[in-house]
Amino acid sequence: MRTIALDVMGGDFAPQETIASLDLLKQDDLKLIVVGQEKVLDAINTSSKVEKVIAKEVVEMSESPALSYKQKPDSSIRVGLSLVKEGRADAFVSAGNTGAVMSSALFSLGRIKGIHRPAIATLFPTTKGQSILLDMGANVDCKPEHLLQFASMGHYYAKAHFGSKKPRVGLFNIGEEAEKGNELSLQTYELLKQSDLNFVGNVEGKAVFFDAADVIVCDGFVGNALLKLGEGLASFIFNEIKAEVKTDFRSCLGAMLMKPALKRLKKKMDYEEFGAAPLLGVKGVCMIAHGSSKARAIKNAVLAAKDIVDQELVQSIESSLQG
Amino acid sequence: MRTIALDVMGGDFAPQETIASLDLLKQDDLKLIVVGQEKVLDAINTSSKVEKVIAKEVVEMSESPALSYKQKPDSSIRVGLSLVKEGRADAFVSAGNTGAVMSSALFSLGRIKGIHRPAIATLFPTTKGQSILLDMGANVDCKPEHLLQFASMGHYYAKAHFGSKKPRVGLFNIGEEAEKGNELSLQTYELLKQSDLNFVGNVEGKAVFFDAADVIVCDGFVGNALLKLGEGLASFIFNEIKAEVKTDFRSCLGAMLMKPALKRLKKKMDYEEFGAAPLLGVKGVCMIAHGSSKARAIKNAVLAAKDIVDQELVQSIESSLQG
Repeated sequence: MRTIALDVMGGDFAPQETIASLDLLKQDDLKLIVVGQEKVLDAINTSSKVEKVIAKEVVEMSESPALSYKQKPDSSIRVGLSLVKEGRADAFVSAGNTGAVMSSALFSLGRIKGIHRPAIATLFPTTKGQSILLDMGANVDCKPEHLLQFASMGHYYAKAHFGSKKPRVGLFNIGEEAEKGNELSLQTYELLKQSDLNFVGNVEGKAVFFDAADVIVCDGFVGNALLKLGEGLASFIFNEIKAEVKTDFRSCLGAMLMKPALKRLKKKMDYEEFGAAPLLGVKGVCMIAHGSSKARAIKNAVLAAKDIVDQELVQSIESSLQG
Repeated sequence: MRTIALDVMGGDFAPQETIASLDLLKQDDLKLIVVGQEKVLDAINTSSKVEKVIAKEVVEMSESPALSYKQKPDSSIRVGLSLVKEGRADAFVSAGNTGAVMSSALFSLGRIKGIHRPAIATLFPTTKGQSILLDMGANVDCKPEHLLQFASMGHYYAKAHFGSKKPRVGLFNIGEEAEKGNELSLQTYELLKQSDLNFVGNVEGKAVFFDAADVIVCDGFVGNALLKLGEGLASFIFNEIKAEVKTDFRSCLGAMLMKPALKRLKKKMDYEEFGAAPLLGVKGVCMIAHGSSKARAIKNAVLAAKDIVDQELVQSIESSLQG
């Protein structure tokens, strides 16, 4: 049975929602170690499947990642990661301060030998199912060789997650042609072309959601920008639909009838369904959940962490580098 | 009366749609100079409001901008721009090869004295109306001082277009805090803070559509990436709504009733309504329309060009640099 360490203190809706997630996970075949402050843990019943580990400190959502690491050695993030480091847990899940989780994972777990920069990989919906985009913000200034490694880590994630033998790897770019883009994308294109990966070329923003590739690679600034723009645009469109509908009775009635369909679509596009994003390239499984995760999102993050452990993704990345 | 030179050969649907736009512009108070190949111009009737100028060559949509400039001195793009240069036209409008229009405008019209890099500025819909985003792809690798100048040019465009006295200028970034972002955004933040502009800080992707600023500045790689992702995501969402609706009768009926509301929303988000993007920083008005522009989009681009001439935007930017 897998053991997952859960940061009970992390997230905009913690600890209420992180605690509520425990109930949703009761039926699943896994053991949880809940990590947090004593007074918060008091509200949780232990069992053969739920263990408690106290962490005295909490990293706030807006705190500086670097400072918090030094100043809060007993934070739920650092304690949770140490459980993975010591082998007491197979994975760590947190919806807390992303920067803090990332830098703590780097220091606590360390990088896989040969990895220049760990990267955050996220799943997103496409017309045919899902694709993976990385890096989502761990590295805001990148070199071509970093992007090449992201591509390789994404390849193994796609193999594990989608079960595809030769995942299609694309380079996010502002044009389809090889000669399009900035210095970074031009040089990365060449590296990817020469690699052993199943490189399918540049992928434009227009094509991202239309199943252009299984893995799409970009630097963390662009990745994070795209992620947040996507979030913002989706909520803008749904808001505008609501506003437009209110202006006439006929549309209002139509919207009522369409509700189930719109709900299904919202669910398809909902980050809560995607089960968080792994930080690839560190020696252990560390899942970063969305800051505004509710209980269901936390549950999905924990299950996604378990999957990644079962799929031995860290080991795959490790052995690929031993060449 | 203003005179606008129109590239009849430019765009995915040229010359049919560019020619069709002439009819839509019949009532407007302006003169058009249609520029294109003789056999194409033959289909157009001249009048006191429509003049023809022959250009023997056409730059294809996929052609290399640099090569086409050298190899096709008699292209509709170069001939049209020369009309502006010579003062025979007040503005040039093209839905042709964006790179070719841009580089030809740079060579033919020249940069305004003091401008490092011209930039493409685009309007996009927000909850409260519209905002301006630049650069949309003219400069894929930028320095902080370039972004500062984009901000200043955007400021004058917003003043002219929205009539606001102190347009709010934001820096596109992956976090709201001053210390977030990559090297470029960190340094640009400082420059903007010290400038005379009404700098409102960083704008995240989530906030872009929620009226966070009148002008949002980023480098051309990011701007183009955002633009195309937005296009792709919007069509993905509308496609998915269609697909979801088909799965049950109730939703199908609802969608029929909602059609007018969805149509209004689509129109609000439609690039055809936005009247193309000016290339700011060159000595003259050059409007770049979307490659897939139909007649209505071309018409709006021509009217937008006329507005920019009327608003004396080029002169405003020029005089701001004379300090």
